[in-house]
Amino acid sequence: MPQSFKLAVIPGDGIGPEVVAEAVKVLDAVTEGTDLTFEKTHFSLGAGRFLETGDVLTDGDLAAIEQHDAILLGAVGGVPGDPRLANANIERGLLLRLRFSLDHYVNLRPTRLFPGIASPLADPGEVDFVVVREGTEGPYVGNGGAIRVGTPHEVANEVSVNTAFGVERVVRYAFGQAESRRGRLTLVHKTNVLTFAGSLWKRTVDAVAAEHPSVVVDYLHVDAATIFLVTNPARFDVIVTDNLFGDILTDLAAAISGGIGLAASGNINPEGDFPSMFEPVHGSAPDIAGQQKADPTAAILSVALLLRHLGAADAADRVDRAVIADLAARGPSHRTTAEIGDTIAALLTQN
Amino acid sequence: MPQSFKLAVIPGDGIGPEVVAEAVKVLDAVTEGTDLTFEKTHFSLGAGRFLETGDVLTDGDLAAIEQHDAILLGAVGGVPGDPRLANANIERGLLLRLRFSLDHYVNLRPTRLFPGIASPLADPGEVDFVVVREGTEGPYVGNGGAIRVGTPHEVANEVSVNTAFGVERVVRYAFGQAESRRGRLTLVHKTNVLTFAGSLWKRTVDAVAAEHPSVVVDYLHVDAATIFLVTNPARFDVIVTDNLFGDILTDLAAAISGGIGLAASGNINPEGDFPSMFEPVHGSAPDIAGQQKADPTAAILSVALLLRHLGAADAADRVDRAVIADLAARGPSHRTTAEIGDTIAALLTQN
Ligand SMILES: CC(C)[C@H](C(=O)O)[C@@H](O)C(=O)O
Ligand SMILES: CC(C)[C@H](C(=O)O)[C@@H](O)C(=O)O
Repeated sequence: MPQSFKLAVIPGDGIGPEVVAEAVKVLDAVTEGTDLTFEKTHFSLGAGRFLETGDVLTDGDLAAIEQHDAILLGAVGGVPGDPRLANANIERGLLLRLRFSLDHYVNLRPTRLFPGIASPLADPGEVDFVVVREGTEGPYVGNGGAIRVGTPHEVANEVSVNTAFGVERVVRYAFGQAESRRGRLTLVHKTNVLTFAGSLWKRTVDAVAAEHPSVVVDYLHVDAATIFLVTNPARFDVIVTDNLFGDILTDLAAAISGGIGLAASGNINPEGDFPSMFEPVHGSAPDIAGQQKADPTAAILSVALLLRHLGAADAADRVDRAVIADLAARGPSHRTTAEIGDTIAALLTQN
Repeated sequence: MPQSFKLAVIPGDGIGPEVVAEAVKVLDAVTEGTDLTFEKTHFSLGAGRFLETGDVLTDGDLAAIEQHDAILLGAVGGVPGDPRLANANIERGLLLRLRFSLDHYVNLRPTRLFPGIASPLADPGEVDFVVVREGTEGPYVGNGGAIRVGTPHEVANEVSVNTAFGVERVVRYAFGQAESRRGRLTLVHKTNVLTFAGSLWKRTVDAVAAEHPSVVVDYLHVDAATIFLVTNPARFDVIVTDNLFGDILTDLAAAISGGIGLAASGNINPEGDFPSMFEPVHGSAPDIAGQQKADPTAAILSVALLLRHLGAADAADRVDRAVIADLAARGPSHRTTAEIGDTIAALLTQN
């Protein structure tokens, strides 16, 4: 049965356009000759757009993006310290606004140490887990404020907002992941210090666990979780955690599994009320932009997550296999961004 | 000139008493025959005390502790999940209450990969940095709350409170550390998301930096900082950061430098208005308590920090050297807690 999807493509800033070009190349290659078609609309958003027009993300942009079945995003953010961006927070105004407006309450970040990939860990063991990071609450809500700014009496507050509604739905999603994987779920929080939020998370996990007797559940404080990520990452299957802890843990997870150049993510609205958004975990890296130095693998693996989300599991598997084949064959030679994309696209036909 | 100090000793729970016994042994050994004397008062505090009396830390305890020149603490906290402790938060009520009441605004956590110590990192390089963690503000202030608890409409908030006063004083301390070390300071925060608190931290560091032109300053988001801690820890000299980020980064720092069994810390009130408190970073580890399995090195290195804080730099250096000598000579043999303490105490006389 032919399936046609509308895809919003947001290349963004820095290396974003380069890695997205390769991701689209692979998407085109994997769908070629199949029943799947993607009708793509490019959205020019990010620091570059802001510098031209003064807009970060207009209501019109958002409405147009919402008309799509999924979003592929590269990376956004200008050169750090650029004075023209001093009053623009592209991350908040664009990336987080998309995640919040499109109710991406699951931020799904799989971590695998692929064959052939070096880890900074001497003895990493089996690394194959997924972090289910909450995406619409916690300290990310933008619910802070400050008084007496710039004076010796300044007070700057940040509020982490956590709701039973918001925690329960992401916890349920995480249990679903655990059931379809190795049946282990670890809640990561800081219940001994953040007692109100921590208690809500803990009680919610306990309650949902009772409905999922086949899942083995444990709990780690976020500080202890970082220790295990470097001493025994094999202990993890599914981690469920809040927005900020998830941000921190997934960069560390990327680091131990070959680096941020390989880390893919999905910002998911599981009910499909809004389009989900797939993006590499890395940023826009303006220092190497336009030099064909970026590794597009994270963006390409994000395409695999996108395909899987849209129900195209076969195509997703083919992309994953092509990436794994490419990684396994990687020598020390430095390839350009496009060369890596070309290789993976070519490998698709052999897998 | 003879110097006599009053030391409050809080062995605490689990392995706390075992490691504190060795730390006191080393303190006695290093001061023997010198002008330094320590008059020790033991305080029986922690989960054990709570189970006996229902008290965590009374005003009387606090007043008595305040009469001392310094505090040596082992570890506090009962067996996780112990139903009798369900309504006691020993960490908040004891450890954090001490840090906050005694205005320990500097939580100083040095990280060194000592010769002979294995790191989980394949190629750690030179690891020698210090984290200056703010100790009296941030998400640790206990300024949260919840409504409709236990219902589907529960909302649980946590407030991170940051003041110009609180940030500036710890930032100044961190610049002092940088000047006495390799002259590099890294601010770690999440300024792109926690914009109010982040802006206060960033502006404060920039302002204090202008007074310290010899210190090279940079900034990392907390997520990126975890990456560098496993890929290039040598890039760090002094890290200054908030209470929660500091908690997370210092467990990771301990992990990459041989584990939590070696990580010492000082909760410092630099002005001396209140006694400073020295403790291993590790917890009470009830699972191995009373078995002489714990490594007392972190507690012993905390004694070195304590001595240095009290101005006894020679004695502090001797303890450090004895620990380094012990670590360098460590074989694969498993020694008891007391054997390690005995060895280090004996090595003192040779250093
Ligand atoms: C750019 C930033 C706002 C973002 C986040 O903190 O979520 C990034 O670090 C990520 O992990 O996707
Ligand atoms: C026990 C806990 C409250 C404490 C903290 O979070 O500060 C501990 O993790 C530490 O790092 O000293």
